[in-house]
Amino acid sequence: MSDLAERVLRGEPRAAARALRQVDDRAPGYLDLLKEVFPHTGRAYVVGVTGNPGAGKSTLVDRLIEGFRKEGATVGVIAVDPTSPYSGGAILGDRIRMQRHATDPNVFIRSVATRGHLGGLSRSTRDMVRLLDAWASAGEGKGVVLVETVGVGQDELEVTRTAHTTLVVMAPGMGDEVQALKAGIMETADVFCVNKADKDGADGCVRDIELVIALGKETMVKMGKGRGHVVHGEAAGLGGAAADGANWSPPVVKCVATRGEGIAPLLEALAKHRAWVEASVEGRARRRARLAEEVRESLREALIDAAVHDLREELDAAVAEVDARAVDPYTATERLVMRFRAQP
Amino acid sequence: MSDLAERVLRGEPRAAARALRQVDDRAPGYLDLLKEVFPHTGRAYVVGVTGNPGAGKSTLVDRLIEGFRKEGATVGVIAVDPTSPYSGGAILGDRIRMQRHATDPNVFIRSVATRGHLGGLSRSTRDMVRLLDAWASAGEGKGVVLVETVGVGQDELEVTRTAHTTLVVMAPGMGDEVQALKAGIMETADVFCVNKADKDGADGCVRDIELVIALGKETMVKMGKGRGHVVHGEAAGLGGAAADGANWSPPVVKCVATRGEGIAPLLEALAKHRAWVEASVEGRARRRARLAEEVRESLREALIDAAVHDLREELDAAVAEVDARAVDPYTATERLVMRFRAQP
Repeated sequence: MSDLAERVLRGEPRAAARALRQVDDRAPGYLDLLKEVFPHTGRAYVVGVTGNPGAGKSTLVDRLIEGFRKEGATVGVIAVDPTSPYSGGAILGDRIRMQRHATDPNVFIRSVATRGHLGGLSRSTRDMVRLLDAWASAGEGKGVVLVETVGVGQDELEVTRTAHTTLVVMAPGMGDEVQALKAGIMETADVFCVNKADKDGADGCVRDIELVIALGKETMVKMGKGRGHVVHGEAAGLGGAAADGANWSPPVVKCVATRGEGIAPLLEALAKHRAWVEASVEGRARRRARLAEEVRESLREALIDAAVHDLREELDAAVAEVDARAVDPYTATERLVMRFRAQP
Repeated sequence: MSDLAERVLRGEPRAAARALRQVDDRAPGYLDLLKEVFPHTGRAYVVGVTGNPGAGKSTLVDRLIEGFRKEGATVGVIAVDPTSPYSGGAILGDRIRMQRHATDPNVFIRSVATRGHLGGLSRSTRDMVRLLDAWASAGEGKGVVLVETVGVGQDELEVTRTAHTTLVVMAPGMGDEVQALKAGIMETADVFCVNKADKDGADGCVRDIELVIALGKETMVKMGKGRGHVVHGEAAGLGGAAADGANWSPPVVKCVATRGEGIAPLLEALAKHRAWVEASVEGRARRRARLAEEVRESLREALIDAAVHDLREELDAAVAEVDARAVDPYTATERLVMRFRAQP
């Protein structure tokens, strides 16, 4: 095993930082590192935190860090901004947060930005979550990994699919509830938090979300072909899918993160969902389905990489032919697949 | 050639409607249809129209339809909403618009929603654009295809990459300018329209956009790894890349679509960009690069489909092994690629 992997597994924050950078940059050797670390993953509790800017996610995440630390856990945080064109560097807010926890070797926070490729962000986030999983669970320790996203677009939801639990943070009066259904949050949300619950409209916000959850149950049955369903093969085990004992219905928890109110019940809701995911047949089926997705996604990327490697000239020739309309792109693709498949 | 393809190529609107449905649903025979139609594509002028909800895109598109019709063109419109969980059906606004043009056999409007898969939306949109391209260019006619998207997320921008020209519509006072840089619009925009130019702040909006364009030129040079760049291999030929004679710098046109003001200059700006794309070395290089992207995307999908077909059992076994942490997902993927590559 490499020195770096060993140090990550011993829980050294600086090793985690270096390993994350290596994975984020896909620097030489990053795959070996991931392979070495993988057998030691799967022990940390991974929570995805998503919600519109302004909902108070960062403050809430800070409170969650505090809460998990009190329980004795080591906490890793990855803050993802898929819309940022800048990569690598920590954002200002992130630096401030890092300073606050700078003296605590059991908290590690890192920002990541876009990787600029369909599926690439969720892949590299997943890899980074694995690293932090291994780091946070070092020794006999309890580990927690929080994945915070900037917005609630499709990319962000993909990112939270790596988590055991997806926590959706909302705030009163932002019109988030309507957006929620649109962006496909209902298929992904496991726990809702209405933050800034001391503001006007908080109870209305809770009611709206509960209504949307109830509607979601009906709509999903009717639709049968929503984004999260057909593609990910998850008709069962979804948060809002049904209210019977076997399935999970997302609770809505009110918080005032700035004052630390409601954090205990929120942690409780998260723990309950974690138990459900880990213990119930449906929860385990969901995790298995997500793993299947991952392998498939990873296979998809590996196949195209291998094909581009093997068939560079044929690919260029095909594009030229399609450009000249000598062949259609569908036939050209079929021929390329045949060529690749036949490769010894 | 199939009867349906022939009728599309004769410019029959009902045939276009049926063909689009077949492609949208990926119904049996849709690929043959696309293959038959392909040699007759590439003649229509394809414009992507994007911008935040509330910028007045639909009204503007209506004006553009009018303008292109006056020039004697046949106009096909595809309105794409990647965030909608409902697919197939026309939205209310769309029906209203369709009614307005119902008596005109040279205008065809169709709504499409999500296909629920990464890359899937841009693929099926591209296929539908091809069909409308062939339909709109029937006989000796001039053809125009407008692709209108609901928002300005990454999915939407992917969709507009099928176009010759991407028109970004903004309105004063919406704070769009700042969003623009974030969402990667600058890499994609060829022409900007500031709609509702009779409102306060229109000139400020124009200035902001021009500033962002100027900044964009600098930033792009510095970044070198923005979303649109590394991935799509398009350092040259981008809208905002440089201001010298060879490259295109996006003009900003003020309009009041509700009153039809500024439409003529906008059409002129579009025509100018079309000429640039078709005549300049850089424009042609960009088109070639986008075609290369398409073939590659199409190959990526075809490869994973073929691999899932060939290796269904191996894939399931791999997932089970990864789940048991008997093997890591990276090694499992490599083995699957080797198996597929070796397939006779």
